[in-house]
Amino acid sequence: MSDVKKVVLAYSGGLDTSVIVKWLQETYDCEVVTFTADIGQGEEVEPARAKAQALGVKEIYIEDLREEFVRDYVYPMFRANTIYEGEYLLGTSIARPLIARRLIEIANETGADAISHGATGKGNDQVRFELGAYALKPGVKVIAPWREWDLTSREKLMAYCEQHEIPVDFSKSKKKSPYSMDANLLHISYEGGILEDPWAEAEEDMWRWSVSPEAAPDQPTYIELTFEQGDIVAIDGERLAPHEVLSRLNQLGGDNGIGRLDIVENRYVGMKSRGCYETPGGTIMLRAHRAIESITLDREAAHLKDELMPKYAEVIYNGYWWSPERRMLQAAIDETQTHVNGVVRMKLYKGSATVVGRKSDESLFDESIATFEDDAGAYNQKDAEGFIKLNALRLRIAAGKGRSAN
Amino acid sequence: MSDVKKVVLAYSGGLDTSVIVKWLQETYDCEVVTFTADIGQGEEVEPARAKAQALGVKEIYIEDLREEFVRDYVYPMFRANTIYEGEYLLGTSIARPLIARRLIEIANETGADAISHGATGKGNDQVRFELGAYALKPGVKVIAPWREWDLTSREKLMAYCEQHEIPVDFSKSKKKSPYSMDANLLHISYEGGILEDPWAEAEEDMWRWSVSPEAAPDQPTYIELTFEQGDIVAIDGERLAPHEVLSRLNQLGGDNGIGRLDIVENRYVGMKSRGCYETPGGTIMLRAHRAIESITLDREAAHLKDELMPKYAEVIYNGYWWSPERRMLQAAIDETQTHVNGVVRMKLYKGSATVVGRKSDESLFDESIATFEDDAGAYNQKDAEGFIKLNALRLRIAAGKGRSAN
Amino acid sequence: MSDVKKVVLAYSGGLDTSVIVKWLQETYDCEVVTFTADIGQGEEVEPARAKAQALGVKEIYIEDLREEFVRDYVYPMFRANTIYEGEYLLGTSIARPLIARRLIEIANETGADAISHGATGKGNDQVRFELGAYALKPGVKVIAPWREWDLTSREKLMAYCEQHEIPVDFSKSKKKSPYSMDANLLHISYEGGILEDPWAEAEEDMWRWSVSPEAAPDQPTYIELTFEQGDIVAIDGERLAPHEVLSRLNQLGGDNGIGRLDIVENRYVGMKSRGCYETPGGTIMLRAHRAIESITLDREAAHLKDELMPKYAEVIYNGYWWSPERRMLQAAIDETQTHVNGVVRMKLYKGSATVVGRKSDESLFDESIATFEDDAGAYNQKDAEGFIKLNALRLRIAAGKGRSAN
Amino acid sequence: MSDVKKVVLAYSGGLDTSVIVKWLQETYDCEVVTFTADIGQGEEVEPARAKAQALGVKEIYIEDLREEFVRDYVYPMFRANTIYEGEYLLGTSIARPLIARRLIEIANETGADAISHGATGKGNDQVRFELGAYALKPGVKVIAPWREWDLTSREKLMAYCEQHEIPVDFSKSKKKSPYSMDANLLHISYEGGILEDPWAEAEEDMWRWSVSPEAAPDQPTYIELTFEQGDIVAIDGERLAPHEVLSRLNQLGGDNGIGRLDIVENRYVGMKSRGCYETPGGTIMLRAHRAIESITLDREAAHLKDELMPKYAEVIYNGYWWSPERRMLQAAIDETQTHVNGVVRMKLYKGSATVVGRKSDESLFDESIATFEDDAGAYNQKDAEGFIKLNALRLRIAAGKGRSAN
Repeated sequence: MSDVKKVVLAYSGGLDTSVIVKWLQETYDCEVVTFTADIGQGEEVEPARAKAQALGVKEIYIEDLREEFVRDYVYPMFRANTIYEGEYLLGTSIARPLIARRLIEIANETGADAISHGATGKGNDQVRFELGAYALKPGVKVIAPWREWDLTSREKLMAYCEQHEIPVDFSKSKKKSPYSMDANLLHISYEGGILEDPWAEAEEDMWRWSVSPEAAPDQPTYIELTFEQGDIVAIDGERLAPHEVLSRLNQLGGDNGIGRLDIVENRYVGMKSRGCYETPGGTIMLRAHRAIESITLDREAAHLKDELMPKYAEVIYNGYWWSPERRMLQAAIDETQTHVNGVVRMKLYKGSATVVGRKSDESLFDESIATFEDDAGAYNQKDAEGFIKLNALRLRIAAGKGRSAN
Repeated sequence: MSDVKKVVLAYSGGLDTSVIVKWLQETYDCEVVTFTADIGQGEEVEPARAKAQALGVKEIYIEDLREEFVRDYVYPMFRANTIYEGEYLLGTSIARPLIARRLIEIANETGADAISHGATGKGNDQVRFELGAYALKPGVKVIAPWREWDLTSREKLMAYCEQHEIPVDFSKSKKKSPYSMDANLLHISYEGGILEDPWAEAEEDMWRWSVSPEAAPDQPTYIELTFEQGDIVAIDGERLAPHEVLSRLNQLGGDNGIGRLDIVENRYVGMKSRGCYETPGGTIMLRAHRAIESITLDREAAHLKDELMPKYAEVIYNGYWWSPERRMLQAAIDETQTHVNGVVRMKLYKGSATVVGRKSDESLFDESIATFEDDAGAYNQKDAEGFIKLNALRLRIAAGKGRSAN
Repeated sequence: MSDVKKVVLAYSGGLDTSVIVKWLQETYDCEVVTFTADIGQGEEVEPARAKAQALGVKEIYIEDLREEFVRDYVYPMFRANTIYEGEYLLGTSIARPLIARRLIEIANETGADAISHGATGKGNDQVRFELGAYALKPGVKVIAPWREWDLTSREKLMAYCEQHEIPVDFSKSKKKSPYSMDANLLHISYEGGILEDPWAEAEEDMWRWSVSPEAAPDQPTYIELTFEQGDIVAIDGERLAPHEVLSRLNQLGGDNGIGRLDIVENRYVGMKSRGCYETPGGTIMLRAHRAIESITLDREAAHLKDELMPKYAEVIYNGYWWSPERRMLQAAIDETQTHVNGVVRMKLYKGSATVVGRKSDESLFDESIATFEDDAGAYNQKDAEGFIKLNALRLRIAAGKGRSAN
Repeated sequence: MSDVKKVVLAYSGGLDTSVIVKWLQETYDCEVVTFTADIGQGEEVEPARAKAQALGVKEIYIEDLREEFVRDYVYPMFRANTIYEGEYLLGTSIARPLIARRLIEIANETGADAISHGATGKGNDQVRFELGAYALKPGVKVIAPWREWDLTSREKLMAYCEQHEIPVDFSKSKKKSPYSMDANLLHISYEGGILEDPWAEAEEDMWRWSVSPEAAPDQPTYIELTFEQGDIVAIDGERLAPHEVLSRLNQLGGDNGIGRLDIVENRYVGMKSRGCYETPGGTIMLRAHRAIESITLDREAAHLKDELMPKYAEVIYNGYWWSPERRMLQAAIDETQTHVNGVVRMKLYKGSATVVGRKSDESLFDESIATFEDDAGAYNQKDAEGFIKLNALRLRIAAGKGRSAN
């Protein structure tokens, strides 16, 4: 087992990944490099340094990746109006390729021959980390402790901590929770606990990023979002970087009870799982993006995007960000966004993000054509007859041959 | 022009179609048969009889088609989770094929050689009526007065009424509205007026079927919806016919401010148009159907449905209900619904319809597999390594040949 | 390892699977049931009985499945005009689901708790066998010796034979070949040997089912194929069962040098592999089916079939015949075949199968409409203007707003 | 009718378009600009000059567009392996967007306000010309004489010629043919005559570009085609411009009886029509391109290309080259071609173009992985078990719940 010399670990600073540091050092007799990133999970990352040092780690990477995360991953994904299985905004999925890339880059910088992560053997995240790693460094060794070790219960884990003098208060500072949670600038997710019964309603005190619609303000909030080439570049006229946009929208959405989701989804590894999500900013972004596209995007391009979207969502959900098929889809999507410029006005109120107006210098909405008033000449109503007649021709021929249309 | 002997007109009883009765009689020197249907538009249809009689019509058809409408058109469409352009629930589109079919059936019964309708030459409805008519009776003559006559302004229309002694109070009883409206059991739509500026927010008093979220009750309403083979058959345990289900859900949704929509959509005839819609029951149905599918439908069947849906929506939106491609898609969709049985629990609150629970005797959700606890043997975490390794193989080979994954 | 009591083995009667019989008996200390099927591979299956008996097998199944194979698997697949990666007619893939089903049925009949097969760990067939087995009997144990044992070279295998007194002439009677071959009524395949260099041309003496185009007759052969609901039911007017049709077409095609294919394909397990195939009858069937559809199938149904076909081919290639997504696609495909009736005339000549005529009582080809002569009224050329104008509208609006169409 | 001042006509120099020159001058009282292009139809274009002058045309454009045609239209289309309805290589369709673009550019240069063409009101070409024109110059007036005039029979046309002193020998020099033909560097097409009966076999003397397979040489011809980024850049090592490649392949293919096609296709205007085509070079190019992709393209990119191809083909067939959806699809396709480099070896023999070898410095074919010999470590056969197990999980769960896989 010991041909591994150095391994880069995605280290959260929490108890589980602290155990992994020790377990890697012991099991593989190798050096461990820790990598801790701020991707907007809402916790300090700097404390991870002291913890890693206490575990004997010499090479410690702590990075703020929020800007890159939103600009290079979240934004491109939202250009496609991406939704998985009709509901899920892919908040967890979209963070993984960035982590995978940094793990590999750090492995290259530090001369490590392996990477490791704290994802279990039942979830999607192991797949996403590892597909990314293999795509970026095909010969890398991947160590997934949860698939290897026997610390598979909380009791065994605690025993291991005691035995190896890992302070249990390494457990991260968030309040005790019966849920398995994951967070980044796009969302926070909850699994486990009572959620394992899909009939059970989530408890109000589970949710962390948003007030309940009931507790939201009685007055709506209106905002204006400015788009350039499909990306939001300003809120209420104030120009912001992508991660600042998302932070602000998370705040606005959360305050108004927006973005809660409770679903059963199909994991790539073959099982169904129940998850709850809060995606306040993303929920607003999605509707706003559709609204700006509704006046600036050609119909057939829009429809083709809609047909490709489920595939694109699946590709990301399953962990194939770093793949030829994702690049291919992205090329098609990005090609359409040149003219997706303008402003969308939204109303946020007790759980709903509603579009109430949209405008653009590049609008394809043409009042003079769509109006119910007399024709100005651009559209001749008589053309509709020929349009219908030829579109009906194949149906008429079939009916004329006695085929039933029923 | 006068080779038409008898024409069946889709007659609302309103002013416009009353003018059409007279215009047809005069222009084509033919007999007019009127057909007026209750498809849940919320207005009495019986008064149309006296109006038609006053216009000299001898064959008058007045029918209640609500049950058939929901059972044979709305329900099959909802099995596909159908949404047009990410937002629109196709409330107008789905009613047209039924009207087209009855027009043709009545033409066959009465020996008419033509049909007529009151849709304009700029909209989708003319296409939907006529494609349906041609598909069901290929040799039928279609008369679309709005594409032929010169009564193209309100003034000319009124002059025509005066000249032909058509009582202007034939104008339907609904309160004066600056909007062009259309309604059936699935929705009510609004176009025109200030909506022709897509930046202008719809006025509160435009909406007719729902209270504003602000005015909705401060307490949520919980309901349980029972599905059989993808269709809702009971609300809170009470078994109901499809149209009763939809009526009840419209009431529940409308009371809670649910189902308002404000969009710019792409018409089949090539222009963009702005429409507002209220679809209270349909909005609830869509989310509930996705929820019951989430625990009963296989992943790949679900994903394939998602990939086909935009095409299916386009087919219906464009008016091709009575087409081979619609039947083909329907066969695929219906094939998947055998096991879509169970109950969904929803919370209705100030504009939001949220799924909070779902259960089914045929659930594919398997707690023992998805749980975070120890394996019971059904799932071996070590399998994940091989799964990932082989899925990564093509990416690794490419990377090994020096191809960049970026 | 020994909780297996009885295993059903897909037994060819050849050397490799004979070794597997012995290895299973020894390694798992279990009873082995052999199952040998005639699916048209062109070898006697009855000799497998004596060989199995000599190996101590008590329950021996030998079956002629040719009729079922073509009727229930090959024919449904050809209704979709199925081609994998633009070239491959799925000859191997389509036989596996039938074998998997019989293995499981025999396991149920004999009370066996496991199945086994002789496919290697690098190919697609292991996947196809096992996905089928798991779909039909979820708790079955699958034993894949090639993934388990260490007899991974020809030398070790021979040593094992000697040690266990397995007669080496169990090696099947086919002439010595450097290629790995597989055959059934639909095709024969070749892999390995010099084919592992994709630049190397296959040697003429490799091919077994067809003469070379050069050696084929100098006179073309004409045949007429009669279709009913998408399936060939007669050749030159002689009514035949599906497997008789395919046998006859294999003969006709092979005599005329038709159906050779030399490709590099992408395996489901992630690698590319080079294979050569002879599919004489299938090659004829595919073109003939497209030809009969060309006059009997609606355009949009045909196009939708074309869009779904690559997915359908992938599903079968990857081994998911027994899946919800295959049933869903099949439902859509079969829905379209009702009117696919008629006769196709083909010319077979030195490697080419060319359609030269097609006719049908249900033809949608309408000479009076398509003709270049004067209109009979069914088609009004002036309608084309409106058709084009409205189809161009979105493009004109965009251009009018200054967008470049380049 | 006479607000047209100057019209650019797509002028072949033949009788029909000569009549159109006169008819336009007379009917619209306008100046006519002629545009005649050499796109490889195999006829001199220069004689069109004198004919146009004789008809009083002052602005005469005669251009050699062969290079541009193949480089910017044919080659991009072949990157997608484009086939319409499983058979047709779109030879006519792909030439229209170029003609449309030049018509509009010349209109802009000469200050013309209209364009005109000689396509009939029943075919696809009118649509392709006009959609292109409207997309490139939204306000242009399009005059389609065949939809307007009453010269709808050969007799009336001849009478018009006599009356207007148009020499009937303007009829182009090609031998008298009962067929309607169209040709460019990619193909020649035949319609009409006995082909209007889809059961009738085309007569041997109809074909012009290829010898019959029977008459082709008894010895095969081998060629090597070099690809760069998906495009053929050399034949047998000789570097050639795109249009030279296609010319050479037409010669090679035609000499070996390759590229004949006889189909019934679905026109965009709603009818089926029978056409025969000779596409010698294109037939070779298509197979060669698939072959080079087979070793250089990632599996999932290849499959996605296959799924998009029918849509792409439809877009081009229907005349939407100058559309957002075509650009979107092209972006996706082109993104995949970076590594499509290498050499394909083909055998041409009596009607068949067969791939016999392919090689590339960027090949993803890895002999060491695909081989049947012992593993070198890159592929661990044991991984296949986990791969299959997780892929089977959803099927097993369903079966475990009692669902039938049949």
